[in-house]
Amino acid sequence: MRVFIPGVDGYLGWSLAQHLAARGHEVAGSDCFYRRRWVEEEMGSWSAIPIASMQERRDAFKERYGAELRFWEGDLTNYELVAEMLEDFRPEAVVHLGECPSAPYSMVDAKHAIFVQVNNIVSTFNLLFAMRDLCPDAHLVKLGTMGEYGTPNLDIPEGFFEVDFRGRKDHLLFPRDAGSWYHWSKVHGSNNVMFACKLWGLRATDIMQGVVFGTRIDEMGAVPGSPSDQRLTTRLDFDGCFGTAINRFCCEAVIDHPITPFGKGSQRRGFLPLRDSMQCLALTVENPPERGDYRVFNQFAEVYDLGELATKVQKVAAEAGLHATIRNLVNPRAEQEDHYYNPDHDHLFELGYRPSGDIDSEIRVMLADLMPHRERIAAKRDVLIPDVGWTGPRRKMKYLASEEPLAIP
Amino acid sequence: MRVFIPGVDGYLGWSLAQHLAARGHEVAGSDCFYRRRWVEEEMGSWSAIPIASMQERRDAFKERYGAELRFWEGDLTNYELVAEMLEDFRPEAVVHLGECPSAPYSMVDAKHAIFVQVNNIVSTFNLLFAMRDLCPDAHLVKLGTMGEYGTPNLDIPEGFFEVDFRGRKDHLLFPRDAGSWYHWSKVHGSNNVMFACKLWGLRATDIMQGVVFGTRIDEMGAVPGSPSDQRLTTRLDFDGCFGTAINRFCCEAVIDHPITPFGKGSQRRGFLPLRDSMQCLALTVENPPERGDYRVFNQFAEVYDLGELATKVQKVAAEAGLHATIRNLVNPRAEQEDHYYNPDHDHLFELGYRPSGDIDSEIRVMLADLMPHRERIAAKRDVLIPDVGWTGPRRKMKYLASEEPLAIP
Repeated sequence: MRVFIPGVDGYLGWSLAQHLAARGHEVAGSDCFYRRRWVEEEMGSWSAIPIASMQERRDAFKERYGAELRFWEGDLTNYELVAEMLEDFRPEAVVHLGECPSAPYSMVDAKHAIFVQVNNIVSTFNLLFAMRDLCPDAHLVKLGTMGEYGTPNLDIPEGFFEVDFRGRKDHLLFPRDAGSWYHWSKVHGSNNVMFACKLWGLRATDIMQGVVFGTRIDEMGAVPGSPSDQRLTTRLDFDGCFGTAINRFCCEAVIDHPITPFGKGSQRRGFLPLRDSMQCLALTVENPPERGDYRVFNQFAEVYDLGELATKVQKVAAEAGLHATIRNLVNPRAEQEDHYYNPDHDHLFELGYRPSGDIDSEIRVMLADLMPHRERIAAKRDVLIPDVGWTGPRRKMKYLASEEPLAIP
Repeated sequence: MRVFIPGVDGYLGWSLAQHLAARGHEVAGSDCFYRRRWVEEEMGSWSAIPIASMQERRDAFKERYGAELRFWEGDLTNYELVAEMLEDFRPEAVVHLGECPSAPYSMVDAKHAIFVQVNNIVSTFNLLFAMRDLCPDAHLVKLGTMGEYGTPNLDIPEGFFEVDFRGRKDHLLFPRDAGSWYHWSKVHGSNNVMFACKLWGLRATDIMQGVVFGTRIDEMGAVPGSPSDQRLTTRLDFDGCFGTAINRFCCEAVIDHPITPFGKGSQRRGFLPLRDSMQCLALTVENPPERGDYRVFNQFAEVYDLGELATKVQKVAAEAGLHATIRNLVNPRAEQEDHYYNPDHDHLFELGYRPSGDIDSEIRVMLADLMPHRERIAAKRDVLIPDVGWTGPRRKMKYLASEEPLAIP
C-alpha cells in the first residue's frame, strides 16, 4: 500500500516509516523540521538519543529496506505543497503525524496557543481538501489523543455513544473536555475530519492515542543499547514541553536525577509502548473503513497512574544499579488528580492488536538504550523540570509539599 | 456599563451600539469593514437598505444619543490592536460580534473555509488573552449559533446536560453536530471560551443564537418605511452568502421575485426578530455570570419551518398588494430536511426576555422598510439565488423538482 506520512521526521513518524516499509508498504513523507527546532532552539534541549539528518536517515532507509523513502521538505500549511505531494505520490493512506504534539508548548503564551491551534487546524484542512480533490479514495489516519476526552466521571467509549435524554435516543459524539489549547486543537481537528467524511465521503480513522513511551522498535535493531544502525534510531525528548511521562522518568533515572511525577501522581492515563503504537497504526492502515466512514479508535495498552509508573521505573532502574529517588513536583497542569478513568479500547483489539509485552521489560530496554547517552542527557538536565505552568508566569516547578530547593537551581 | 463591541459596523453590531446607548451604557467598538467588502466585492451585492459610512454613523450616534461612539478601525487577528483597545477603554463587557457569520461563505472553497475558521478562532483567542491580562473581571458575550447543535433526534438543552451512561452520571457539554465549516468554527470558539473560563476564571456567556430577521429596532425610528435618520439604519443583506431566510424572502417579495426556501422547506429552526436579539443581548450584558462561569443561552423566540415562513411572508406581502409566488430551490446545503427539533430556551426568559410581538407584524414592518428600496434590490436580483453548494462546483441552484429555468438566468 502507498502510505504518505506528514511529519515523517518525528518520534512516531520515523518509526512508522520503517515499520510500514518492513511490512512491504511503499512509504513517502514530508517534514519541515519544526520539532527539531522547537526542542533545540526553544527548549534548549536535544534528543536523548542522537538522531541523524534526514539525508542520512534516507540513505540508511534505502540500505535497510531496499526502497527509496520519498521525501518533501515543507510546511503542511502550504496548500500548494500538500497538493503537489498527494498528486505526485497518489497515496492509498495518509497517516497525519504533522501536527504540533505538545500540551505545554501550547500553554507558553498567546502566541504559542494560537500557533498550535492554527498550525494543527490548517494542516489538517489542507490534507482534507487535497485528499478530496486528488485521492478521495485514500484513508486518512488522523492522530488525536485520549486527552480530547478529559477525565469525565463516566466510562469513555470510542468516539460515539448512545444518548438517552428525556426519553429519546440518538447516537452522538461523546462530549470532549480537553485540558490544554493543544488538546483542544485536536478536538477541533477531530470535528473537522468527521464533517469532511460526512460531507465528501472521505474515509478516516481518528486515533485517540494514549501516552507513548519507548526508545525503539525491532526494525531499529533487536539488541537494546546497541542499535544495528544509529541512523535508524528515532528521537526521544525529555524536556518540559516535548518529553512525556515514562520517557522523562527513564532519562531522569539514568542520570540519578529524581524521578518527577506531577502533583500527587494519582492521575490515570492510557499508555502504550512505541512498538505497540506502530502495531496499531499498521493495523489501522491495513484495515481501512468504508468510504464516508469516520471511526474513532482509543489506542492504548493499559491504564496506569503516574505514581505507579514512577515506582516501576525506579524498581527496574534499581536492577541496573541505578538508585533514583522519586520527588513529586508541583503540578504545572490544571487537571484532576483523583478521578474515575475507564476508557474502552476494543476496536484495535478486535482488529488483532496484541500488546507486545510487559511494561517492566520495555522500561528495561529503554534504560539500556539510554545508558550510553547519560552524559548527553546530563548536559541538558536543567530542562527536566518543567517551567510552563497552565496558569501564571513561566518558572521552574518546585518539589511538592516541601521548601527544599530544586535539584536544579 | 462600558461595553465594547468588536464588529460594531455589522447588522447586529450597529443595532446593539444604539440599543445599549439608549439604555444608558457607554459603548465603544471596532471593525475592519470585512462585511462591506465581502458583500460588495465578493458577492457583487449591497445592503438592501443603504447604510452610511462609519464616520456618518458616529456623527448621527452622537446627535441622537449625546455620547461619543469610540471606534477603532482594525482587524481582531492583530493582538496588539486588541490589547490597545481593551487597555484604553477598560470594558466591563465585550460583545464579540467580530466573526465571519456566514455558513455559505465558509463553503466556497478551501481558502474560504480556512479563512473563516482561522479568523474566528484567532479573533476570539486574542480577545480571551487580552481580557485575561487587561480586564479579567469583564464579561465576554460570545456569539455562537443554534447551528452548533445540528438537528439531533433529542431535545437540545442549553449547552450542557446530565449524562447517564452505563450506570454512572456526569454533567457534560451537549454534543455538537454542526453543518458547515463556519458552524464548526463557532463550536471551536465555544470550546476555547469554555476552557478559558475554567483556566483563568474569566466569565462568559455563549449565545447560541437562532436566525435573526428584521430591518430595524425602535431606536432607529418608530415609523416603518421612514427612518428618523437614515444614518442610523443597519444593513440588510439578501445575497446567497450573507442573506438569511426571512430577510431574503422579504427582499424577494418586494421585487416580485419568487420566494425561494431551500429544499422541501421542512427544516425547522429557531428565529427571532432583530429587536428581540437586542433585548436578549442587553439582558445578557446587564446580568453577568460569576467569575469563572461559562454559561450557554439558546437565544430565539420561536421555532418555525422554512416553508411556513415563506407562506407567512407571501400572505403579509399580499396584504400590501404584492403577489409573490413560492418556488422551492434545490437545497444547496447538506442538511436533514425532515427532523425532530425541540431546543430549550429558558435561560433568557428567566432573565426577563419577552418576545416583542407576532412575526406577521414584524414582516409588515420589514416590507414597509424595504419597499422604498425595490429598485436597489432589483438591480442586484441575480444574487438572490445561491450559487455556493455544500458539495460540487459553484453554480446557481435550480428550482426543485422542475426542469424549468431559473427566474434569473
